[in-house]
Amino acid sequence: MAIRDIDDLPKNKANYTALTPLWFLERAATVHPTRKAVVHGSRTYTWLQTYQRCRRLASALAKCSVGAGSTVAVIAPNIPATYEAHFGIPMCGAVINPVNIRLNASTIAFLLGHSQCAIVIVDQEFFTLVEDSLKIMKEKSQGHFNPPLLVVVADEACDLEALRYALGQGAIEYEKFLESGDPDFAWKPPQDKWQSIALGYTSCTTASPKGVVLHHRGAYLMSLSNPLVWGMNEGAIYLWTLPMFHCNGWCFTWALAALCGTNICLRQVTAKGVYSAIAKHGVTHFCAAPVVLNTIVNAAPEDTILPLPHVVHIMTAGFRVTHTYGLSETYGPSTICAWKPEWDSLPTDTQARLIARQGVRYTTLECLDVISTKTGEPVPGDGKTMGEIVMRGNIVMKGYLKNPKENEKTFANGWFHSGDLGVKHQDGYIEIKDRSKDIIISGGENISSVEVENSLCFHPAVLEASVVARADERWGESPCAFVTLKPEVNKSDEQWLAEEIMKFCKSKMPAYWVPKSVVFGPLPKTATGKIQKHVLRGKAQQLGPVKLRKL
Amino acid sequence: MAIRDIDDLPKNKANYTALTPLWFLERAATVHPTRKAVVHGSRTYTWLQTYQRCRRLASALAKCSVGAGSTVAVIAPNIPATYEAHFGIPMCGAVINPVNIRLNASTIAFLLGHSQCAIVIVDQEFFTLVEDSLKIMKEKSQGHFNPPLLVVVADEACDLEALRYALGQGAIEYEKFLESGDPDFAWKPPQDKWQSIALGYTSCTTASPKGVVLHHRGAYLMSLSNPLVWGMNEGAIYLWTLPMFHCNGWCFTWALAALCGTNICLRQVTAKGVYSAIAKHGVTHFCAAPVVLNTIVNAAPEDTILPLPHVVHIMTAGFRVTHTYGLSETYGPSTICAWKPEWDSLPTDTQARLIARQGVRYTTLECLDVISTKTGEPVPGDGKTMGEIVMRGNIVMKGYLKNPKENEKTFANGWFHSGDLGVKHQDGYIEIKDRSKDIIISGGENISSVEVENSLCFHPAVLEASVVARADERWGESPCAFVTLKPEVNKSDEQWLAEEIMKFCKSKMPAYWVPKSVVFGPLPKTATGKIQKHVLRGKAQQLGPVKLRKL
Repeated sequence: MAIRDIDDLPKNKANYTALTPLWFLERAATVHPTRKAVVHGSRTYTWLQTYQRCRRLASALAKCSVGAGSTVAVIAPNIPATYEAHFGIPMCGAVINPVNIRLNASTIAFLLGHSQCAIVIVDQEFFTLVEDSLKIMKEKSQGHFNPPLLVVVADEACDLEALRYALGQGAIEYEKFLESGDPDFAWKPPQDKWQSIALGYTSCTTASPKGVVLHHRGAYLMSLSNPLVWGMNEGAIYLWTLPMFHCNGWCFTWALAALCGTNICLRQVTAKGVYSAIAKHGVTHFCAAPVVLNTIVNAAPEDTILPLPHVVHIMTAGFRVTHTYGLSETYGPSTICAWKPEWDSLPTDTQARLIARQGVRYTTLECLDVISTKTGEPVPGDGKTMGEIVMRGNIVMKGYLKNPKENEKTFANGWFHSGDLGVKHQDGYIEIKDRSKDIIISGGENISSVEVENSLCFHPAVLEASVVARADERWGESPCAFVTLKPEVNKSDEQWLAEEIMKFCKSKMPAYWVPKSVVFGPLPKTATGKIQKHVLRGKAQQLGPVKLRKL
Repeated sequence: MAIRDIDDLPKNKANYTALTPLWFLERAATVHPTRKAVVHGSRTYTWLQTYQRCRRLASALAKCSVGAGSTVAVIAPNIPATYEAHFGIPMCGAVINPVNIRLNASTIAFLLGHSQCAIVIVDQEFFTLVEDSLKIMKEKSQGHFNPPLLVVVADEACDLEALRYALGQGAIEYEKFLESGDPDFAWKPPQDKWQSIALGYTSCTTASPKGVVLHHRGAYLMSLSNPLVWGMNEGAIYLWTLPMFHCNGWCFTWALAALCGTNICLRQVTAKGVYSAIAKHGVTHFCAAPVVLNTIVNAAPEDTILPLPHVVHIMTAGFRVTHTYGLSETYGPSTICAWKPEWDSLPTDTQARLIARQGVRYTTLECLDVISTKTGEPVPGDGKTMGEIVMRGNIVMKGYLKNPKENEKTFANGWFHSGDLGVKHQDGYIEIKDRSKDIIISGGENISSVEVENSLCFHPAVLEASVVARADERWGESPCAFVTLKPEVNKSDEQWLAEEIMKFCKSKMPAYWVPKSVVFGPLPKTATGKIQKHVLRGKAQQLGPVKLRKL
């Protein structure tokens, strides 16, 4: 019955081109050439100007032999140059590597070396940081060091002294660099949609950061689905509180071009900055980590403009309070806790419980499930059985750069393994319970370190707490709590306090979940404020195993 | 400088899957299982039910050996079965061929034969039409005829006699057919995004319809971009006035699943039906040909519900009044006349002139241009120089089925040639001036038949007019007008009327544009109401060439 003709029509130049978000910029420049594309302080660039600046950048890079296979690092806050880099760098065929500006010199040295960075575009504020990184690289290189070209951005309120210093060190000023490029540069879309567009390193909660490689196709699909799931319309006005260096601003960089919207830059996120941008530019949307929301909500009255002149949509991701959830490995958010009208009439605490879940897959993520870590089979939708959250689809990264071992693990059995543990509810919504590497296995039972931590935080003396596994002669592992006490707490009798806290836990959780050891002190954190559990694990190891107690 | 590692990461099952809109249905069933998916009269199916029905359909088809390479025709108005067919048929790997219900038996016979149709799903109202088509096919087959299986849909207000007759002829009732399928059928996404999903025949303005083949990838991209350019949000309530058999309802069939929206079916488009659906179901969007808009605007007062309870968005396509423009070959609309806020303050006639243009490319169409038919180079953006409208990108069809000659022509030089002639304005917006095959070349100059027709219609005696080329001894070709006069016009002196009309034209257009011949009578039309210019061309040929006149 079947005929082959229907599938035999070939691809050709007219009906097939690699999916890439670069076309969005060309379109925005055609459709809305005079509309504001990027606003930063007193500077405004239209979409036509932005397109021309990006083509100049691509051209200037190409003149420096940057092209397919090259990596260009960007170390800068949310300023126009960072936005332009998201188009200009891929337009010459290269890969953008936006670097977290809060990292230290030695980590940056590692990233620049690992990515074989050809050029660094750096904001003048961070020039000496990059210089320090290059020194470290040179020292380690034993004479074979070929330093990358430095392009320094002189932002508004620029420290002229610092800029002069940078130029003295051989750096090229960004606007000069653009001038050397052709505004009509004939950029080409990638030959293959699988071509890489971006490289981003996972945050340094572990010892060696992994380089997540993203491709044009995924960035394109993410750009289309972000506005779709969020109801962001054409011409949206987007405030950059989320750093663009975080997973390319969850691909909102490219999405804004697809929407022909307006990017409002913000060099530093302050409550005042956010409120005045909303009032001045008519911001319709922004994304924010919980800590940013906190800043906004708890702002001093003189920094706020209330009531707001219009409704502003906020997308937030974080742990436990999320509406969206995702990883660098999935181009940013890849699940969304889709709200249902029938929830409107539920009690507030039920609503809070429902919305705290990570939810359902993005439109462009093809599969999302929770699978048993033992059998690999999907867990039942009972809201109880824990398993690993896994994903499959076109907004999953290509893989980690130069890391075949991790890639094998991460892509085992045709799933992307998020490393997060969770449950699946009856309605199909998933909910995170823990990071899989943070899970504690005691007597063969899983203990969610997150749940123990959450309970600990209810104790009146506890400021913050982190729980890791400690070896245990009887149970294999048992929970070990690291606790920072509130400043006002009398810390003279730590033994008594530890017992108090354990007693408190006993009233809140199964006995085997109760930490068998409590250690007081400040918690080690990364530059971005995440607790470094691997450091705590090291400390727990130094404590030795919990001894078998005769009962 | 370049490193290969960054591009060397391979595709795998976790990070790559063929793009297909079928995933949207699975997602809608997970995210909003109880939300209304399809409403038709008193019947309502939720997204979960729709998903199950589609899986049943896929399963039942697979049991009939329908799979990859098979074609299934659907001959039905906008009813749930037609919607379900858009998912169920591709879910078993086959291609859906929705057939225009207004075609006659011999054209349908041609389509079913050309597509080697395995199964026909037919609404009971059109059963005898299909029967007649099969008779024609049998007669022409000279004994080698293997008739397709017939599945008949008993819609609401069904003619029981007709249904009984169909069943008597060996047809299977649609609901029975579904029952034979498995609601948990393990459908598989296509192995390849290039796999065909739909086949649709171009309307019969020419003698032999061409079979436009669309693929999963394009349908997926169109589903994401339709809502994006139109500002259609999650949960939209969409009224089906546009026939689903027209280019798969411009892919809104699949887009509604991406949006987890609600499909309001409408067996017949009447003003009353439209108004009551808006009031009863809270319709937020519908698409409509100008003729439908006309019906709605000019409805009898007793058929309307005014003022409307809420804002309803309408997307319309047609000639000259379009906001969007596209072809079956581009999955439906592929350009949009994007409105600009600065137009708000312009005079109404300027606004009308601006919005009458076909505009700019869709987000997922990568290139749109107007090229010289002589040099193939883009025409200048002067709003005057005519050229052919060409497109390139992922929402261009695979090609015409079994028609290598047409494919070569249509895809020449890496462009999809729309066959429409137009200009490019200074702001990059394009505007159609004529179909390229309708253009009249007189003394080496192009004459837009559309513009001559538009002028003719301003003559008080003219009801409608169509202009084609007639051979001309002096000029090669010259315009020949076919005119239908208004009923009230005295038609006794045609010669005088013809001269009157030519005189009228002379005052409106360049002399060489003025029709040298005027023929009165009714205009030949297709089942969908399009004027059949090829018939008129035949008549013009019979007239012989316009003789050289001694001056």
